[in-house]
Amino acid sequence: MRGVLDIPEHLGVLQSAILDALSRVEARFDAQLASDLPPVDEMCRHVERYRGKMLRPTLVALCGAAVREDLGERLGSGDAGVITDDHIAAGAVCEMVHMATLVHDDVLDEAEIRRRGATVNSLRGNEQAVILGDYLIASAYELCSTFDSPIPARIVGRASTVMCAGELLQLHHRENASLDERTYFEILERKTAALIGAACELGALCTLGFDRTDHPAVGAVGRFGRQLGIAFQIQDDLLDLTGEESVVGKSVRKDLEKGKLTYPLIHHLAHADPRERGRTLRLIGSPSRAEDTRALREQLAETGSMDATRDTARRLVDEARIALTPLPEGPGLDMLRLMADAVVERSF
Amino acid sequence: MRGVLDIPEHLGVLQSAILDALSRVEARFDAQLASDLPPVDEMCRHVERYRGKMLRPTLVALCGAAVREDLGERLGSGDAGVITDDHIAAGAVCEMVHMATLVHDDVLDEAEIRRRGATVNSLRGNEQAVILGDYLIASAYELCSTFDSPIPARIVGRASTVMCAGELLQLHHRENASLDERTYFEILERKTAALIGAACELGALCTLGFDRTDHPAVGAVGRFGRQLGIAFQIQDDLLDLTGEESVVGKSVRKDLEKGKLTYPLIHHLAHADPRERGRTLRLIGSPSRAEDTRALREQLAETGSMDATRDTARRLVDEARIALTPLPEGPGLDMLRLMADAVVERSF
Repeated sequence: MRGVLDIPEHLGVLQSAILDALSRVEARFDAQLASDLPPVDEMCRHVERYRGKMLRPTLVALCGAAVREDLGERLGSGDAGVITDDHIAAGAVCEMVHMATLVHDDVLDEAEIRRRGATVNSLRGNEQAVILGDYLIASAYELCSTFDSPIPARIVGRASTVMCAGELLQLHHRENASLDERTYFEILERKTAALIGAACELGALCTLGFDRTDHPAVGAVGRFGRQLGIAFQIQDDLLDLTGEESVVGKSVRKDLEKGKLTYPLIHHLAHADPRERGRTLRLIGSPSRAEDTRALREQLAETGSMDATRDTARRLVDEARIALTPLPEGPGLDMLRLMADAVVERSF
Repeated sequence: MRGVLDIPEHLGVLQSAILDALSRVEARFDAQLASDLPPVDEMCRHVERYRGKMLRPTLVALCGAAVREDLGERLGSGDAGVITDDHIAAGAVCEMVHMATLVHDDVLDEAEIRRRGATVNSLRGNEQAVILGDYLIASAYELCSTFDSPIPARIVGRASTVMCAGELLQLHHRENASLDERTYFEILERKTAALIGAACELGALCTLGFDRTDHPAVGAVGRFGRQLGIAFQIQDDLLDLTGEESVVGKSVRKDLEKGKLTYPLIHHLAHADPRERGRTLRLIGSPSRAEDTRALREQLAETGSMDATRDTARRLVDEARIALTPLPEGPGLDMLRLMADAVVERSF
């Protein structure tokens, strides 16, 4: 969103509204984390450096706008109120939950670089990283309970539980060289798709009213978000194998090193001949060396696994776009479609 | 509670109701954690072994009963409905949040024994322990959002944030040999007292209605819980220094080893002569050896620090009892007073 997309002229006003919303989310985020204890504040400053694409708050704001039947007219008449304080709070909540998982993920992955900065665990030790993650998640729930309705807390609580189960399932299958595609998708649906789907639903509900959970547009953006989330993660998998650290902005090839099988590798192992398969298996769980990475890329190319991965991500994006059918035509829907395409076109 | 207290005969019916409630809390707890994923279920079985005194669910149920004006009559007429499903859910929520902090604390403390069993981190690695803690906290929030009102989520979210800030403050002061009493109490108020106070308030609100946050009895049990919580922790500090692993049921003398200054040590360092002070300081942060522990106990006895610690815990318990003044006389109030006394009389 932020400078990622080439935005056609007719979406300029909506884009400005979203960018303005993201600034408000940042301010809300910081205000919620602020503490009267200097050591807490000091630690929270590390979180600022993790801030990235703000995909989830963007989706809260954009889905919130897109479900309005009269969005085009309201934007045309200069109505800046299409994104409300509820959308801002919900966006901050989703970003906090996401940040918490990043901080704890980096402990699990022993990662040293995230978004071009050293990770909390590498700078301050695992202990601070565990507590910082806990502080983020607690702050998210605290903020989420300030709504008049218990529905947002219910959606966020559910998504968080599902995410943790996904993390556990992933950990359980670490070093499992025969991980199949079905299980891999099961992990992604939980670990990544659930929160992104929840962000989209929350955005729609903040506009329509929290009692409208059965509104077709709510289901539609939820499905959109989940498919998009899986596509997003598959693109991440691809970048972990093919990306350069300086472009991606975080440690790459960590998946393989930590014995995590991702889509390209699962496809490769299913299609490689036994000798090649053996060669690839030896790389799983061992430290990444430049020459191995080059060899692996060649092996993946031979089985067409990179192309297959790109095709799968593309198919998921198409499904996400189709899920949007119940939404009213207008700038919101156009922008969501653009965002979906951007997910598979990014290199970072 | 469970076999800890000598209960006078007139409290027998209430005690049975509380014990019955604790069984229901256990069932609710297990049902909430149950997952369709076998690896998640398998990991949750580790949590069963952490189950201990169930102090927080006991307080939810007991405070819920104690704020009823007609408790004596209802118990007399055999009314088993004094503890409702809301109390059970709130009790399970508080226990889950507490368990989550235990699991993450054990990662931070590198503890190997908790409640007579090996800790999750020592058995399954820090990675599983971090995720298990996250799963517990997410499940707690999910359960907490099933109430009709957002108030329980607000109370639990707030208490969790305060707890994390307390953990951070404690970590910040690790190895700080000049930690003063004021900062020590500030840590306890956040790390321990907040959740126990919240458990008491939730219990009262489940009885009175969630919109009665300004009811005097709610404030009274909240204050009671916070004072009791601090007394409880100070008793824990004492047991960490004086207890035997086989009686306490968890790794002892870990506080000192990890450089955590507790009340007895803070008192000792403030009152010891320079030579003795130097001797004690050398023990902070170093592995505990049996001969050091014996020597330390003698040093603590010389400055009267053990007695001072017991006196402080006793004073806090007395303050907790005084806080209960707004509550109606009856078996609930009597039982709360008994529980308060039990906190400083326990050896485990």
